[in-house]
Amino acid sequence: MRRLRMGMIGGGPGAFIGPVHRLAAEMDREIELVAGVFSSDASRGAAAADAYRIEPARAYASLDAMFTAERAREDGIDFVSIVSPNHHHLPAARAALAAGVAVMSDKPLTATLAEAHELAALVHAAALPFGVTYTYSGYPLVREARARVAAGALGKIRKVVVEYPQGWLAGEAVGKQAEWRVDPARAGLGGCIGDIGVHAFHLAEFITGLSVVELLADLGAVVPGRALDDDCTVLLRFDNNARGVLLASQIEVGELNGLRIRLYGETGGLVWYQERPNTLTWHTLDGRTEVIHAGGSQLGPDAASHTRTPAGHPEGYLEAFANLYRDFAALLRGEPAPLLPGIAAGVRGIEFIATAVAASREQAGWVKL
Amino acid sequence: MRRLRMGMIGGGPGAFIGPVHRLAAEMDREIELVAGVFSSDASRGAAAADAYRIEPARAYASLDAMFTAERAREDGIDFVSIVSPNHHHLPAARAALAAGVAVMSDKPLTATLAEAHELAALVHAAALPFGVTYTYSGYPLVREARARVAAGALGKIRKVVVEYPQGWLAGEAVGKQAEWRVDPARAGLGGCIGDIGVHAFHLAEFITGLSVVELLADLGAVVPGRALDDDCTVLLRFDNNARGVLLASQIEVGELNGLRIRLYGETGGLVWYQERPNTLTWHTLDGRTEVIHAGGSQLGPDAASHTRTPAGHPEGYLEAFANLYRDFAALLRGEPAPLLPGIAAGVRGIEFIATAVAASREQAGWVKL
Amino acid sequence: MRRLRMGMIGGGPGAFIGPVHRLAAEMDREIELVAGVFSSDASRGAAAADAYRIEPARAYASLDAMFTAERAREDGIDFVSIVSPNHHHLPAARAALAAGVAVMSDKPLTATLAEAHELAALVHAAALPFGVTYTYSGYPLVREARARVAAGALGKIRKVVVEYPQGWLAGEAVGKQAEWRVDPARAGLGGCIGDIGVHAFHLAEFITGLSVVELLADLGAVVPGRALDDDCTVLLRFDNNARGVLLASQIEVGELNGLRIRLYGETGGLVWYQERPNTLTWHTLDGRTEVIHAGGSQLGPDAASHTRTPAGHPEGYLEAFANLYRDFAALLRGEPAPLLPGIAAGVRGIEFIATAVAASREQAGWVKL
Amino acid sequence: MRRLRMGMIGGGPGAFIGPVHRLAAEMDREIELVAGVFSSDASRGAAAADAYRIEPARAYASLDAMFTAERAREDGIDFVSIVSPNHHHLPAARAALAAGVAVMSDKPLTATLAEAHELAALVHAAALPFGVTYTYSGYPLVREARARVAAGALGKIRKVVVEYPQGWLAGEAVGKQAEWRVDPARAGLGGCIGDIGVHAFHLAEFITGLSVVELLADLGAVVPGRALDDDCTVLLRFDNNARGVLLASQIEVGELNGLRIRLYGETGGLVWYQERPNTLTWHTLDGRTEVIHAGGSQLGPDAASHTRTPAGHPEGYLEAFANLYRDFAALLRGEPAPLLPGIAAGVRGIEFIATAVAASREQAGWVKL
Repeated sequence: MRRLRMGMIGGGPGAFIGPVHRLAAEMDREIELVAGVFSSDASRGAAAADAYRIEPARAYASLDAMFTAERAREDGIDFVSIVSPNHHHLPAARAALAAGVAVMSDKPLTATLAEAHELAALVHAAALPFGVTYTYSGYPLVREARARVAAGALGKIRKVVVEYPQGWLAGEAVGKQAEWRVDPARAGLGGCIGDIGVHAFHLAEFITGLSVVELLADLGAVVPGRALDDDCTVLLRFDNNARGVLLASQIEVGELNGLRIRLYGETGGLVWYQERPNTLTWHTLDGRTEVIHAGGSQLGPDAASHTRTPAGHPEGYLEAFANLYRDFAALLRGEPAPLLPGIAAGVRGIEFIATAVAASREQAGWVKL
Repeated sequence: MRRLRMGMIGGGPGAFIGPVHRLAAEMDREIELVAGVFSSDASRGAAAADAYRIEPARAYASLDAMFTAERAREDGIDFVSIVSPNHHHLPAARAALAAGVAVMSDKPLTATLAEAHELAALVHAAALPFGVTYTYSGYPLVREARARVAAGALGKIRKVVVEYPQGWLAGEAVGKQAEWRVDPARAGLGGCIGDIGVHAFHLAEFITGLSVVELLADLGAVVPGRALDDDCTVLLRFDNNARGVLLASQIEVGELNGLRIRLYGETGGLVWYQERPNTLTWHTLDGRTEVIHAGGSQLGPDAASHTRTPAGHPEGYLEAFANLYRDFAALLRGEPAPLLPGIAAGVRGIEFIATAVAASREQAGWVKL
Repeated sequence: MRRLRMGMIGGGPGAFIGPVHRLAAEMDREIELVAGVFSSDASRGAAAADAYRIEPARAYASLDAMFTAERAREDGIDFVSIVSPNHHHLPAARAALAAGVAVMSDKPLTATLAEAHELAALVHAAALPFGVTYTYSGYPLVREARARVAAGALGKIRKVVVEYPQGWLAGEAVGKQAEWRVDPARAGLGGCIGDIGVHAFHLAEFITGLSVVELLADLGAVVPGRALDDDCTVLLRFDNNARGVLLASQIEVGELNGLRIRLYGETGGLVWYQERPNTLTWHTLDGRTEVIHAGGSQLGPDAASHTRTPAGHPEGYLEAFANLYRDFAALLRGEPAPLLPGIAAGVRGIEFIATAVAASREQAGWVKL
Repeated sequence: MRRLRMGMIGGGPGAFIGPVHRLAAEMDREIELVAGVFSSDASRGAAAADAYRIEPARAYASLDAMFTAERAREDGIDFVSIVSPNHHHLPAARAALAAGVAVMSDKPLTATLAEAHELAALVHAAALPFGVTYTYSGYPLVREARARVAAGALGKIRKVVVEYPQGWLAGEAVGKQAEWRVDPARAGLGGCIGDIGVHAFHLAEFITGLSVVELLADLGAVVPGRALDDDCTVLLRFDNNARGVLLASQIEVGELNGLRIRLYGETGGLVWYQERPNTLTWHTLDGRTEVIHAGGSQLGPDAASHTRTPAGHPEGYLEAFANLYRDFAALLRGEPAPLLPGIAAGVRGIEFIATAVAASREQAGWVKL
């Protein structure tokens, strides 16, 4: 079975997430990066091609150039990964779909809600595989949590607390990674809410299988001079009436990437923490606490099939990311990949961001989502 | 120096907090329990006297009986500890103050805001020592955190997250401890918000030295049939404009007594967790993380003077509680005890509860505190 | 029921363990410190009486003075606690037993093996209650571990690893606590092995219910100029053929009081760590890991009856110590206290120390115990 | 720069470590698996080629076939990875070196000491790059620890405790992975000591920069019927006179892959734990404890250059493994890779195994290494 061929859009010198996509996509040897539009600047594009060790000729200067040239090759790309800042997501995806090429897009789906709706229509029309890299849904124990909730291990869900603390934007936003994230022209509607809040939101819906139907948002721009939010509190109500709290911040000094979710139902509780991703804690109403280990014998198939090492051999962020690409490869081969976030989850994220930003700005109290 | 003599109000058979007060008060041998109105039922009162090993004759059937008899003794009580359900706090304190007896009261101060204001007036008029057992402010590392914040270790505070998850009321409220807490006639205005939310609120103001000036409350009664809240989310704004979130719940299955506070300023962060109370984590903006140990050499005087064992010999809840009594004994002896919560902190707690309950019921959005 | 009356031997100004014994003994209000020989120096004795808040007249200058005077009182002492350096243990206990007074002794039992045997004979002849404060056996979850092992939760025990790292003697031995511990004239045969190794040894036999039958010892004096060992490795064989390792050190910089025991049997494993004493981890051969909480609903009677607070309200070192005194009070009242270490456990500890010290000095390889 | 071409020896269907080598080698896109002798059985070899997605024609049935065919290709292999059971290591390496092909070998280097010496001579004669995958030396924070020790952060090292507990062989040795490890014909001299003890040994020498000069070994075969050791205790003396303890076990039920090392010097201590590999704890003699984060700003170049994600995005076992291949790729390109374990470290490991096995069997006490 041949490897699927990937083109990258974005990911030039200095990028963080481009190399992560490359590594994750290739981890299981089902996919190979072969081309890309890494930068609109030719010399930077060439530098990227060199760093990624792909043929210099396949580092293109524009989307058009890439799609035209690749279509002409027998071994042309099967899909693109979009890893550029948010405002490029729609144009890139539009071009890909127009060229008949499947898309794996970083999150958030687009920079605005209108763009998200436009993209959803294009995806539906194109009927091509489309994935969104909500990274944390790739962790085996997140999938285990989801399966256990679905199987009733907690009873009816009553409460969800999802927190995503970071501290790296507590000072001045300096450097390539920081600068575009605090710039509305490139980041879009949301700052922290779009960069990490949307991960937390997706995680909550992904694990619970519930939908948020109302929210109350209080977003703040704490660091002086910041145009976008950098600290977010959002109260949630789910469609089964469960209560929720979503906290995300990028100004909490010392916090690294502390995504944590706690779920409580009528008969049990589950806790998962991204910085120690290989254990899941399960509480029961009768007072028992069990620790479930990634790679261990207690896992169901959703987790077990997405784990590469035995228990005690820690996997992490890159392996979780790779699980999304494994799913996406399955999709491309025509197999089901029900856990891979698709266009609907992407649109859902933008609806969340747009609704939260507007509700907070207008101090609207509880609003529908 | 003789031991101070304590009378207890409440704390009869089946009580949890009465024995805790007794043990905490006596831990440093500065105080001795000698009398009490443990129950309005004579046989239960006698049983309590027996359990506490005090003279049967000093287990009284009424407040009046106690204050009258004790005043007549040369070795009469110096103060009372009020450990009964909330609706008894005001009558008990009123009687004590009228008898010229100092008071150490459990929290929340009273069952209603009107009662709190009445009690404050009485305390001011009586000019007697008055303490409130916000237990968690007695932990050495909480005091260390407070001192470090005051000394500028975090710079200007920007964000406070205080969480108090419990799970013990996720099912039916069964047993003496649970039943009165879910009964408005005995618990007063608040359920979870009054039982544990107020601890979290006090802790946030205690450590930061800031005052909450606005809040937005969303309290829920999750367990069917419950008249009072059992799950609380409260957004906070402090007087220096810092943002805050307070979460408290008693329906989070598997959570024990998980009070946790995280504070972030312009230049640092501090994290403390009640279930592992002997370490405090300190982050700095330049990327260092330090672990401060109770009993260790890095402690300032507020913490060091309230620690009884060397580092590595864990202290806990009872020692923290005893620290409040150590402070209270100092007050009784005419020494300063600036860290002991007094009537102002007690009233403040009731204002918080009353404001949060009303704001939530009316869906009032942000309101002043 | 009246309180039992305690006299203390040792524990004068600057002592660490004297105040701990006082506090622990009195915690449950079954015992009261009323007298003592705190120091051979009168003014220091008076200072101690003041600090402990006992009658000045009952701070005696000698053992003789105390036993004579107390015997003459109607409310004379019921027992003594011996908290002085090791070389005082035997003379103090001898005097107490001769006076018909029960004894609670700190560990190690004596300074030499000959002394231990002499004391054992005296205890047997006197037929008085005698306890030894192997503190860690007082922790509720240690007792839970013991009960689970006895009930077969691990199957046949195969392996025991007990580690007791400390770092406080990594530098010069400065101060009252450090100085006598490194002085053979006061500490006796062993340094680290007698100060903390013996705790680890007792814990291993206590929890497993097994006896060590052979050992191989390698004790070192790492800090230059030290006459006694400060770093110990001892290999163990138990009477059921289980293998064991005991590590104890006082030169491991940064280690506080990190006693940790891990037990493995044919079908399960148990892990307990003194610095986080309120959880016990239980592994089963089929891959499950359970966390057992102090105060929780999963506890058997040995643990449940020695816990004072609900789960999540941490107890620690002082409460564990108090559990030994609770047991000792039961003994004094004529009730059984099967978990309290007595003279046999005390002698056993000295045999361990003496055997290890000799075996190490002679590089004897495996020797019988 | 072209990718380096790797051939694999071993790693057929059911293998654990073969896929790990493939993934690790390819992670940074500097290396590509192109060929292999996965199995002596043709159909199993073909299945492996399919699973690894390599050309079926390059799955060879014998070493000879591979080296002959690959030498004839312009795009023939640059090196082999040897991932077969231990007794195949020497023949495989011998064939590779004879064919002028560099070698990356799994540990232990060989099955016997004589084989190790033979191989060392061959490597020296061939003057080809040779690496040994002591996986744990690839972790960024292990390298950070090494650099800090070398820079004097602990002062002179006094004590090393390295523990490697596992539990997966506590029951019957069932399945491909277990079976060869308990079979002397395939595993060689050592069971647990060769499978994981040697990792612990290498880690201790790697981080400290010291050499073990004496050891005392006590190896046991705990599970009935086992021919090789499954539980090991080894006392160590280093060339600077530091004391050490090495514990390794495969019968500790519930332990996963709990490699942990603690180092103590005159002025500091360092602790690292493989199951939480992204933090390193550093203690100083003056009582400070610092937590160093992988990806954080406190790292020196050895760690920083071997980390792929920012702090808080956990890396694990596979990334550590990939770091060894990154080093090996550098070697192949003629660059220095001073941290990659080479033939000397491989021989050293076998000397350790052979010495420990012999010393334990003969109960020889302390022996030279």
